[in-house]
Amino acid sequence: MAVWRGPLVESVHRGRLAVCDPEGNLLEAVGDTGAYIYPRSSCKPFQALPLVLSGAADEFGLTDQELAVACASHNAEEPHLDAVRSLLRKAGLTEDDLQSGAHLPLYEPDADELIRKGEEPRPIHGNCSGKHAGMLAVCAHEGYPTASYRDPAHPLQRHILGLLAEICGLREDEVIVAGDNCGVPAFAVPLQSFATGLARITTGAELPDNLSRAALRIRDAMRAYPFMVAGTGRLDTELMESTDLLVKGGAEAVFASGSQEGWGLVLKISDGAHRAVRPAALAALAGRGVDVPEAVSGLRGLHGETVGEIGPLFQAPGAMI
Amino acid sequence: MAVWRGPLVESVHRGRLAVCDPEGNLLEAVGDTGAYIYPRSSCKPFQALPLVLSGAADEFGLTDQELAVACASHNAEEPHLDAVRSLLRKAGLTEDDLQSGAHLPLYEPDADELIRKGEEPRPIHGNCSGKHAGMLAVCAHEGYPTASYRDPAHPLQRHILGLLAEICGLREDEVIVAGDNCGVPAFAVPLQSFATGLARITTGAELPDNLSRAALRIRDAMRAYPFMVAGTGRLDTELMESTDLLVKGGAEAVFASGSQEGWGLVLKISDGAHRAVRPAALAALAGRGVDVPEAVSGLRGLHGETVGEIGPLFQAPGAMI
Repeated sequence: MAVWRGPLVESVHRGRLAVCDPEGNLLEAVGDTGAYIYPRSSCKPFQALPLVLSGAADEFGLTDQELAVACASHNAEEPHLDAVRSLLRKAGLTEDDLQSGAHLPLYEPDADELIRKGEEPRPIHGNCSGKHAGMLAVCAHEGYPTASYRDPAHPLQRHILGLLAEICGLREDEVIVAGDNCGVPAFAVPLQSFATGLARITTGAELPDNLSRAALRIRDAMRAYPFMVAGTGRLDTELMESTDLLVKGGAEAVFASGSQEGWGLVLKISDGAHRAVRPAALAALAGRGVDVPEAVSGLRGLHGETVGEIGPLFQAPGAMI
Repeated sequence: MAVWRGPLVESVHRGRLAVCDPEGNLLEAVGDTGAYIYPRSSCKPFQALPLVLSGAADEFGLTDQELAVACASHNAEEPHLDAVRSLLRKAGLTEDDLQSGAHLPLYEPDADELIRKGEEPRPIHGNCSGKHAGMLAVCAHEGYPTASYRDPAHPLQRHILGLLAEICGLREDEVIVAGDNCGVPAFAVPLQSFATGLARITTGAELPDNLSRAALRIRDAMRAYPFMVAGTGRLDTELMESTDLLVKGGAEAVFASGSQEGWGLVLKISDGAHRAVRPAALAALAGRGVDVPEAVSGLRGLHGETVGEIGPLFQAPGAMI
């Protein structure tokens, strides 16, 4: 992507793209699709699967809003906080059990409100608090220890690693494990393996029955409540509201999307720049024939600001990003 | 520069570097040094020269603090605001004459304080307000219209364009003019021409006498009051406090520095990422034999936060950035 100022390109963002079908065939590629990426929060739908698979969602009577917020990088708007609290309450837990990192709400008016009130952000305001609440609920259901739920050796984290590997068509030892900023494991997988995984969880294809059913329940919850997955002004929410895609972005400029027509699309901006994600994702989706309304394709950043003239550097498909 | 997470590089920042002497010889190069960059705020020392050349600084009895803040991308800490107000007052002007864009203070505690008080940021809080105050003071001294001082056709802006071209060894028509975010012209010049210009304004060499004297007065004011040029936790301030360099960064990840030993060094991170500037600049300066104290080389971003494990991707000098 090129960031223009007057007649010249001022800055440039490069990236890699893979589009795969559920069988793992590479339908489209820009750059080295075999190289690893950290999908970061794009893993959240995978990390939420144990909620359904374990029976925790049924035992606790979780709503689709609560399942969706467990997959969220949310803005910490009031509905997000309500859903996280409710999820915790149903599992017999409280905000105090959350070990997610505290940061100001991503939604700027709510961040300003917290500052005005002189309050420090709490773990529930962190964009990952729904994921953490979901993990805690699985622990409560399974009788796993809750205090150590972030530890890579914890049975839940081991289970998630196995699920991610299986869905992406990898051996467990092909998934690289590091730490995410909120303290749970962050996984790295080859770009095209993750695109294959996206295609599978969006369609349910090429998965064992129980996994297929759990994936479709998570997909349907996210698609039924796109606001819960991100919030006001956010690309993931706007795209799910206006297309039939499953969409979940991740930190350091990852965009992951699945179509029920049978493909998964994953994009990584190499320098990690958030501002490049929306225009690059929209260009990539346009290449797949996805019809995105004008309102969504406005060039806005996380908080809705105009980031200026930013768009594909070249029009040739292979060099689009 | 590489941004690491666990065992893998998560994101990568590329860049270009030129080091030139005042005669325009290229002493060091990474990437295409003939290609243009927008130096953005790294132009501010050049844009402040008319304050001295016109006699405005003498007529109004400007202090070195006020000259330094005219070259600043300041944090809007109290001393910055005081210096901008004082500069305006001496020129018979007020905050209301500023047409710089309003944004929250770059210094986070002061930004939070403004939010707590429920105040909107004003033009004086914009990091460019000292530059605008300086431009207004020249207009007041010269009898130029003040209302239109940002117009590229305004006599002051035409004068600045001519000075920048002359110092960088370019014809005026080789300087490309666009708009900066604060509404004044933003100039683009070849990377190595700007490095040559930096070498000249830092040493006074290869310049006509009056320009040489004005450049050294600006240099000495910036070096005498590094805090005025940026502020708490900022790279420009810390480097000028701890080395004998002249340092002025610019938006979209430009780093410009001059040594009295006779070179100018300019670095542009291609994707415009602020977080890459400090480690890249320190690596480049180390390559010039500049001894930077440990405290400055801490890997911190604009607000002093740790940005994680970020450092040169390759150790080979030619591929350093």
